[in-house]
Amino acid sequence: MKIIVDAMGGDNAPGAIVEGALQANRELGVDILLVGRTEAILKAMEAADVKELPSGVEIHNATEVIEIEDDAATAFKKKKDSSMTVGLTLLRDGVGDAFVSAGSTGALLSGSTLLVKRIRGIRRAAMAPTAPVFGGRAILCDCGANAECTPEYLLQFAYLASLYAQKTLGVASPRVGLLNIGSEREKGDSLRLAVYPLLEEAHAAGRINFIGNIEGNTAMMGAADVIVADGYSGNIFLKSVEGAGKLMAKEMKNMFMHSAKTKVAALLMKERIAEFKKILDPNEVGGVPFLGICKPVIKAHGSSNAWAIRNAVRQARDFAQSTYIEDVQANIEFMKVSVPAENA
Amino acid sequence: MKIIVDAMGGDNAPGAIVEGALQANRELGVDILLVGRTEAILKAMEAADVKELPSGVEIHNATEVIEIEDDAATAFKKKKDSSMTVGLTLLRDGVGDAFVSAGSTGALLSGSTLLVKRIRGIRRAAMAPTAPVFGGRAILCDCGANAECTPEYLLQFAYLASLYAQKTLGVASPRVGLLNIGSEREKGDSLRLAVYPLLEEAHAAGRINFIGNIEGNTAMMGAADVIVADGYSGNIFLKSVEGAGKLMAKEMKNMFMHSAKTKVAALLMKERIAEFKKILDPNEVGGVPFLGICKPVIKAHGSSNAWAIRNAVRQARDFAQSTYIEDVQANIEFMKVSVPAENA
Repeated sequence: MKIIVDAMGGDNAPGAIVEGALQANRELGVDILLVGRTEAILKAMEAADVKELPSGVEIHNATEVIEIEDDAATAFKKKKDSSMTVGLTLLRDGVGDAFVSAGSTGALLSGSTLLVKRIRGIRRAAMAPTAPVFGGRAILCDCGANAECTPEYLLQFAYLASLYAQKTLGVASPRVGLLNIGSEREKGDSLRLAVYPLLEEAHAAGRINFIGNIEGNTAMMGAADVIVADGYSGNIFLKSVEGAGKLMAKEMKNMFMHSAKTKVAALLMKERIAEFKKILDPNEVGGVPFLGICKPVIKAHGSSNAWAIRNAVRQARDFAQSTYIEDVQANIEFMKVSVPAENA
Repeated sequence: MKIIVDAMGGDNAPGAIVEGALQANRELGVDILLVGRTEAILKAMEAADVKELPSGVEIHNATEVIEIEDDAATAFKKKKDSSMTVGLTLLRDGVGDAFVSAGSTGALLSGSTLLVKRIRGIRRAAMAPTAPVFGGRAILCDCGANAECTPEYLLQFAYLASLYAQKTLGVASPRVGLLNIGSEREKGDSLRLAVYPLLEEAHAAGRINFIGNIEGNTAMMGAADVIVADGYSGNIFLKSVEGAGKLMAKEMKNMFMHSAKTKVAALLMKERIAEFKKILDPNEVGGVPFLGICKPVIKAHGSSNAWAIRNAVRQARDFAQSTYIEDVQANIEFMKVSVPAENA
């Protein structure tokens, strides 16, 4: 198992990326192929007190770096020797089993779609983060890759995420909910009304476990294992939850800093507060998989620290070890809507 | 100032409604007109230890009650003698200055639109709750009244909410943000792309203070005073924040109940925890105004307790005392998009 890592992508590259990748190699026993400027990578290794390339760690030189300012749709083409383009090409060519990058989301999505390609029959790749919900975690799909969606895209997201939830959450029959503004079947906009019967049909055929519409609050209370959304509203969901978490964390801090008495309480609560913070810490999850691409690509978040990269590599390994892509291929005929919306 | 109150709407009607309305009469000095089954209202008064109708409190009998099961679009018509229909009619006829109901949102919206009517030129009434954000509060508009929107609706929501924020948040020039999935102007779906230049134009003319796109997380961090959204994604935003708040409140409870040590901390934190809970308590805000209706209508949430009703009456009073509706009328020409989307 070899994971290709974009050493140059993200706010803390290459330092935190290299450190996290080396940690994954040590702790998880996976081989690592670091892609980027060799000199910068070696320097980052030195800073992490690693004098020699450990066994199972290689470097593949790439001289360019895709920056946030670069046009997302064309960056991977314009910068042919960028760490991201080279990394994706190595993945396509089978040099490694999965690719991890903390670089530009848009560029990674375009590059994955056009270089590595989608699974045949899949209309759009989607991003499927794992969201913290009460009592566990849920897979949200899509969360921003596709702002504009057709009913068929949403049907495909339901399958893609349900199959992924089976692998990653270990749930045999994940409860699939359609993110909506009420639980009744007649709720929502025209997109929701159009996709509802498609999901019902898939449920009736025993292919997915569709539990109906779910609202943002019940989703957070753990009502579903899979939350199906277009990229626009999925992103609103995810960012709103993130914002509410930040707001509450700030208010909680104020609460504990209020007086001498509350500061004593803070001391008594120290370990608990650390545990509490972990719930909403994106570094714990690792990254966001691009579902629908024919090889595993994991987007680590832009501000990833070494721990986040280590976890993203773990996630990439689990993805690559699973039969996920074969499972999608086996179900592809059920994910098509009879009136063809466009060419795949 | 007389506020008409639907005594029969909501999970805790008529008890909590009557109690809250009487409290508002006592504490805020507003006259109250309770609409509903006289007998049930008198019984609720008795239960609240009020033997006689206080000065400034009247009852208007209405024999029917609109239930959650009733069809929202037609309930107000089918149940002509319902507390909601009678209350809205009294409002229309000028018997009172504003209407408060904790009953069915859909029925109240249909009834307000068809009985009380929209302000001339306004395409759709919108719901504009006040959301807790870091450092204060923000007005979200729409949050669920209109699942499907045109660019013109969103332009109107921006004006409606900006003028409302001036009155209720006391901000002279409210920062208006368009809820979106990125801050750059080219982000989002076709609706967002179409409304962005309309908002820019209104900004350039000095009519609203448009600050551009805002994401769910920055909105929660207090980046805008007004958050403009279609009813579908506004509802996703609101419910997700609510759900995240609930999740964190539950996790916080677990945190404090963890051990003898943390229970001591909980005791030290008692007053702070109570303050913290208030941040996300919908009972504190009161209710949600229907903007665009030509008289003030406030939707109190379904599970309102007496305190929530008292606060909704306060909100209704403030709305009715303001020049809000005149302000909207004065701006109506600027809220039209030259290509008419449909009849008003």
